[in-house]
Amino acid sequence: MSNLTSREIQLKSRPQALPSVENFEFVEVTVAEPKAGEVLVKNIYMSVDPYMRGRMRSARSYAAPFEIGETLYGGCVGQIIKSKSDDFKEGDYVTTMHGWREYSVSPTKGMNKVNPDLAPLSAFLGTLGMPGMTAYVGLNNIGKPQAGETLFVSAASGAVGAVASQIGKIMGCRVIGSAGSDEKVAWLKEVAGVDAAFNYKKVGNLEDAMAEACPQGIDVYFENVGGAHLEAALNLMNRFGRIPFCGMIAGYNDKIPGPTNLALVIGKCLIIQGFIVSNHADMAPQFLKEVGSWVKEGKIKSKETIVEGIENAPAAFIGLFSGDNFGKMIVKLADQN
Amino acid sequence: MSNLTSREIQLKSRPQALPSVENFEFVEVTVAEPKAGEVLVKNIYMSVDPYMRGRMRSARSYAAPFEIGETLYGGCVGQIIKSKSDDFKEGDYVTTMHGWREYSVSPTKGMNKVNPDLAPLSAFLGTLGMPGMTAYVGLNNIGKPQAGETLFVSAASGAVGAVASQIGKIMGCRVIGSAGSDEKVAWLKEVAGVDAAFNYKKVGNLEDAMAEACPQGIDVYFENVGGAHLEAALNLMNRFGRIPFCGMIAGYNDKIPGPTNLALVIGKCLIIQGFIVSNHADMAPQFLKEVGSWVKEGKIKSKETIVEGIENAPAAFIGLFSGDNFGKMIVKLADQN
Repeated sequence: MSNLTSREIQLKSRPQALPSVENFEFVEVTVAEPKAGEVLVKNIYMSVDPYMRGRMRSARSYAAPFEIGETLYGGCVGQIIKSKSDDFKEGDYVTTMHGWREYSVSPTKGMNKVNPDLAPLSAFLGTLGMPGMTAYVGLNNIGKPQAGETLFVSAASGAVGAVASQIGKIMGCRVIGSAGSDEKVAWLKEVAGVDAAFNYKKVGNLEDAMAEACPQGIDVYFENVGGAHLEAALNLMNRFGRIPFCGMIAGYNDKIPGPTNLALVIGKCLIIQGFIVSNHADMAPQFLKEVGSWVKEGKIKSKETIVEGIENAPAAFIGLFSGDNFGKMIVKLADQN
Repeated sequence: MSNLTSREIQLKSRPQALPSVENFEFVEVTVAEPKAGEVLVKNIYMSVDPYMRGRMRSARSYAAPFEIGETLYGGCVGQIIKSKSDDFKEGDYVTTMHGWREYSVSPTKGMNKVNPDLAPLSAFLGTLGMPGMTAYVGLNNIGKPQAGETLFVSAASGAVGAVASQIGKIMGCRVIGSAGSDEKVAWLKEVAGVDAAFNYKKVGNLEDAMAEACPQGIDVYFENVGGAHLEAALNLMNRFGRIPFCGMIAGYNDKIPGPTNLALVIGKCLIIQGFIVSNHADMAPQFLKEVGSWVKEGKIKSKETIVEGIENAPAAFIGLFSGDNFGKMIVKLADQN
């Protein structure tokens, strides 16, 4: 036993609709000593992501459900402070799946070293982490936007959307984004450099706003939200359009009706394709090299909302569903040495 | 002018929901003499197909709308009775797009000779025509069923579904079909040779019936109907499943709500892809060779409902939407010589 204690967050009960802080429980545990092959990691940033909502259900989805009374887990970045592994040494910065706690002791399987000179550590949970790679995989494998085509991105200032939008610009597309505040829209236009953006909460008729922003129709719709956005996009899609289904946050807490115009998929010869970024781990080196260089060259900007302290992690997570986050929502657990 | 007259059917008004016979008008025209390069065809069978409903709207879809006060058109098979073309001669049997009339005079563009020894002439509007090729293209290009996988086909005894089901069996799949009458179900099991089939109007809970018939889940859902079938299929799809979107007849006349579980596409990494058979004309020779040989060997059986007389064509078309047809719905216009 070390004399370290770790505050951790467990799932206390399964949310029925929108999660509340009552669904979470704080515990304090004594941190074990790493055994042979294991490392002790001090977590610096942890990620809260919409997909975690799915794991709070009891039904098995693509990822196993979180168990009641066990510590939650998810992406985080930290520093190794004690190593009994030959592959990782003290001082290394790593990403792990052992978030929702201040310290972790574990084997090194699934850990990846990160280069703190490439970008701020928090970027490895966002632009250079799972959300960024989700954007990269969705565009490269499904969206396949061609220069001159129109790419529409919903939740465009979000963790995934912001990267998808900026990769789209690099690929030579006309990029249009929707977001849920004027501040987000301004960032999209002025920092991310999209061609047009609008605040979907203020436009009145969503489809009219999309149509105005996409005079040539939509060739690729990067779908993050579902609901009315999808219905409107289907009406505006061009023939042979592609819709990478990345997320449908509108339906994560409540059942929402599907689009009434799904039959347009037939006549327009559309492709709707879902994907899970973890199935594409083989693309990680290529992603880190390509997107990493764009980040380093300033071609891709990151936007993050950083909440301080593990005690605020549940509220940060819940805030994802009302769009409280602007960019990638991250919880800071400790200072970087 | 010849002294032939042709009875023809025009669109009198655009249907709002389910079409009625009042939307159609009969006219009688004198048949012109063919000019250089043209042929005069006596139509023997004409096709009525669900996709024609889309052409009755004023909005342009993938196919141009029918015009009010003009003769409708669509697939038919007939015999050339006068030719001023070097490529076609009197007595040739041909498929054309000049249906909904007894005689046509036209250039030969888009006409194809058919071999009356390969199959009965009517088969060139069904199993060896557009519907059969739709099944072939949807399975080969999108569904890509592998031996041992489960293929579920809705409207499985219909013009497209019957071919899709039987190709699935030839490909080594476990094939399950749904249909709207006990007679259709019996045909699917006893003649088409599917592994299981059920009458969706009698099963009570559709998803339970599908689940029971598909104990290994569904790998390919050949979608012809939309509505409740799609919602249930999404729940039962296996990961990496494919859904060729061929038709959604449930929504052709009225707007129907989309599936509430479309987000499953993400976690299950599904592909939903629409297609239009006319974009794949390059596959026609391969289709005719392969499916033609299966028909000749008795491996693919055809089922047709043949209605006699052009005066019954509107009712035959309308009947498609209540499932009056059993197999391919065809209107017989004249006897074959």
